[in-house]
Amino acid sequence: MQQSLNDTISAIATPIGEGGISVIRISGKDAFGIASKIFFKHKDSSVTLRMEDLHSHTAHFGYIIDREKLIDECLLTIFKAPHSYTGEDVIELSCHGGSFVAGKVLELILSRGARHAGPGEFTKRAFLNGKIDLSQAEAVADLIKSRTESAHQSSLKQLEGELSKFVADARAELIRITSLVELELDFAEEGLEFVSKSEIKNLISDLSNKIRSITDSYIAGKVIREGVSLVIAGKPNSGKSSLFNRLLDSDRAIVSGVAGTTRDFLEESLVINGVLFRLIDTAGIRSSSDEVESEGIKRSFRKISEADLALYLIDSSISESEKREEEEKFIENFDPQKSILVYSKSDISVNEVSGSSLNVSIFDEVSIETLRREMTKSAYLVQNSVGAGEMVLTNFRHKVCLEKVMASLEDAVISLDKEISGEFISVDLRAAMNHLGEITGEITNDEILNNIFGSFCIGK
Amino acid sequence: MQQSLNDTISAIATPIGEGGISVIRISGKDAFGIASKIFFKHKDSSVTLRMEDLHSHTAHFGYIIDREKLIDECLLTIFKAPHSYTGEDVIELSCHGGSFVAGKVLELILSRGARHAGPGEFTKRAFLNGKIDLSQAEAVADLIKSRTESAHQSSLKQLEGELSKFVADARAELIRITSLVELELDFAEEGLEFVSKSEIKNLISDLSNKIRSITDSYIAGKVIREGVSLVIAGKPNSGKSSLFNRLLDSDRAIVSGVAGTTRDFLEESLVINGVLFRLIDTAGIRSSSDEVESEGIKRSFRKISEADLALYLIDSSISESEKREEEEKFIENFDPQKSILVYSKSDISVNEVSGSSLNVSIFDEVSIETLRREMTKSAYLVQNSVGAGEMVLTNFRHKVCLEKVMASLEDAVISLDKEISGEFISVDLRAAMNHLGEITGEITNDEILNNIFGSFCIGK
Repeated sequence: MQQSLNDTISAIATPIGEGGISVIRISGKDAFGIASKIFFKHKDSSVTLRMEDLHSHTAHFGYIIDREKLIDECLLTIFKAPHSYTGEDVIELSCHGGSFVAGKVLELILSRGARHAGPGEFTKRAFLNGKIDLSQAEAVADLIKSRTESAHQSSLKQLEGELSKFVADARAELIRITSLVELELDFAEEGLEFVSKSEIKNLISDLSNKIRSITDSYIAGKVIREGVSLVIAGKPNSGKSSLFNRLLDSDRAIVSGVAGTTRDFLEESLVINGVLFRLIDTAGIRSSSDEVESEGIKRSFRKISEADLALYLIDSSISESEKREEEEKFIENFDPQKSILVYSKSDISVNEVSGSSLNVSIFDEVSIETLRREMTKSAYLVQNSVGAGEMVLTNFRHKVCLEKVMASLEDAVISLDKEISGEFISVDLRAAMNHLGEITGEITNDEILNNIFGSFCIGK
Repeated sequence: MQQSLNDTISAIATPIGEGGISVIRISGKDAFGIASKIFFKHKDSSVTLRMEDLHSHTAHFGYIIDREKLIDECLLTIFKAPHSYTGEDVIELSCHGGSFVAGKVLELILSRGARHAGPGEFTKRAFLNGKIDLSQAEAVADLIKSRTESAHQSSLKQLEGELSKFVADARAELIRITSLVELELDFAEEGLEFVSKSEIKNLISDLSNKIRSITDSYIAGKVIREGVSLVIAGKPNSGKSSLFNRLLDSDRAIVSGVAGTTRDFLEESLVINGVLFRLIDTAGIRSSSDEVESEGIKRSFRKISEADLALYLIDSSISESEKREEEEKFIENFDPQKSILVYSKSDISVNEVSGSSLNVSIFDEVSIETLRREMTKSAYLVQNSVGAGEMVLTNFRHKVCLEKVMASLEDAVISLDKEISGEFISVDLRAAMNHLGEITGEITNDEILNNIFGSFCIGK
């Protein structure tokens, strides 16, 4: 874990764009030195202000001046190490908004010896300086990206250390079990048995179950973080794109512009009753199926099956025999728990519906509202493994670590069963402990850190 | 000037988007009361923090809590009236970035009694509370919107009160002249003449000339603020769109996405050598000219003449006689001071060039670079009335006010010439004084204020 913390970094911490204020952060050993070269209390830049003379956590109005040329008026707030976000000396400059002004100020800071911070580098320093652990650092990025109430709450809980606490508890338990095993080892030679093997096995499987309940929450967590993916499928001309547009249109105010996905179909995000949906129009899939016949259709269904939910559209105006054919196709290919059968164009013809099927017309707001309600109900089912307020795992890396912990615990149980020497069991348990440590960052390496902080935005 | 300053306003002051930090501002009589209802030093929200107990200009880490539910960790900075941006009690909350989190915090503040601030309302309060004058307030908006060095510098000068000082000096001079005229009035009855009419006329015309030199800078100021508009004209297939794209492409990094103009032709912004150009492709104009013949062409030329600069393209590969025809059209319709004749497609055929005409090929970087240099040279000519460091008028409202001042001064001179009673002259001079006062806001009304602050972004 070789990290250079010897230089001073700087970046614009606020989003880019027009706004009232831009905040530029400087962190590191020379933050104060750099600030005193560019920030002055008076427009006459001959009087230098020593940052060391200012109290920590105080704000000062002044001028950013580059060799007698005024760059901006601004407010400087000073944070002295270790009482700052990064744990280092930090200066925050609150300038006039607008990317040009903020860019000028940043340019000046960099010309005075600071290095432009990489993505997430301030948070990385907070981690390296022991201000937060790794899972909390990851929660910061999730919190910034959160777009729904549930995503916001789950990242906030993680930031507040809920996952860290779970990991700490699990580690403490592991240490207790390991010491029992190792104690056993010492006394085994003397023919004494303090704790029975079955007792140890029980302790391990209790812990394993606790961890499993957390990893099981990952699917729900993924939904919370990334949204429920919902495909709209059906034959050509069944009204897929019209419904797609209708659902987006009526919720225009809260559509998030997630353009440019790498997939080959249309995808848009929208929030309905607090649930983030990623709506997928399979128009693209269907048109390619014209060429490749049944194999193409099968491939489409496979793609569809990857989605969390599906709406299958049957055109109400087609003949009854065609409808029966379509209904069979639906039953054959779709999981009833994860899909809704929609008879579209119900303004033209109305069908008898049963179970989770619906009559929907894009011209009938009531039917659209019913559909929305069914969609959110189904989405809740996707996340039904988790009760309100329970901890949810939203991060893939954490899930992988916890799975490794469980695998190591399983190894330990197998070793116990096979009556293998206690030393091997101890090795398995210590491996489990290390995997736990990877979550909070006690055990880590540059590659993991770069992966984590590389996905942050610059300035955090 | 009835302004309610009795309520408390709040808004997100940073640009909307993903970023490390969002800043939410609260200003007004109840800013501290509201803050103490939502901000707590500990996660246990039972202990209320009295803002009155904190020192002004200090920053405090804590938690935003809504009825025991944690919303965010944040940093609160307190500014006590009158030592704040608005001159009122101000709280700034620096939360985690991301629009969802900031939106939650703002929502909570509004639910505790603040009103969502309108565009520019914080700056409006700064004006109403006498922290800055009106021309400085306008400079804040310009500063935020600035996209070039010159725009940045000219708005900064205005913010620093350069225009305010000019207005103050002009007013002082006007007061002196008026008192001379009024003194004259008093003593005229006694048959005494303190100052000769010609002396007063000279004083007025001196002042008028000073004001004219500032209003004359407006064209350059407009260019600084809005950029140089440059049309690319020429016959269909002369290479207009290719050149348009080439100029944009090679400067892709600094193209500002000014999409969605209300005009019926393509417009894009780019910065070349520090000059902001608004590039206009007249493709749209030309295609309509097919239908309406010569009248259509004339109309196009009229549109073109509104631009600051024009490039007229002649296809190098057409016949010599056609070229002569095109050259005549250019000479007939374009101001040589404001246009560049470009022989396009010079990779196919090279022409003899004279004066400000150029051979250009989009495949020849050297020729494009020469064109760029000519464009910036011509742009400097547009702003040539102003020397470096001189004050430049960038605001249309200010220009109109100053023109009214000059008109009133002219009226005064006419009255003097006509030997009209001194009282009328005094009225003219006082009108001039009022128009000056409109610039800095000593004389103002709701309509003017709403116009000015309505163009601000929210949160400033």
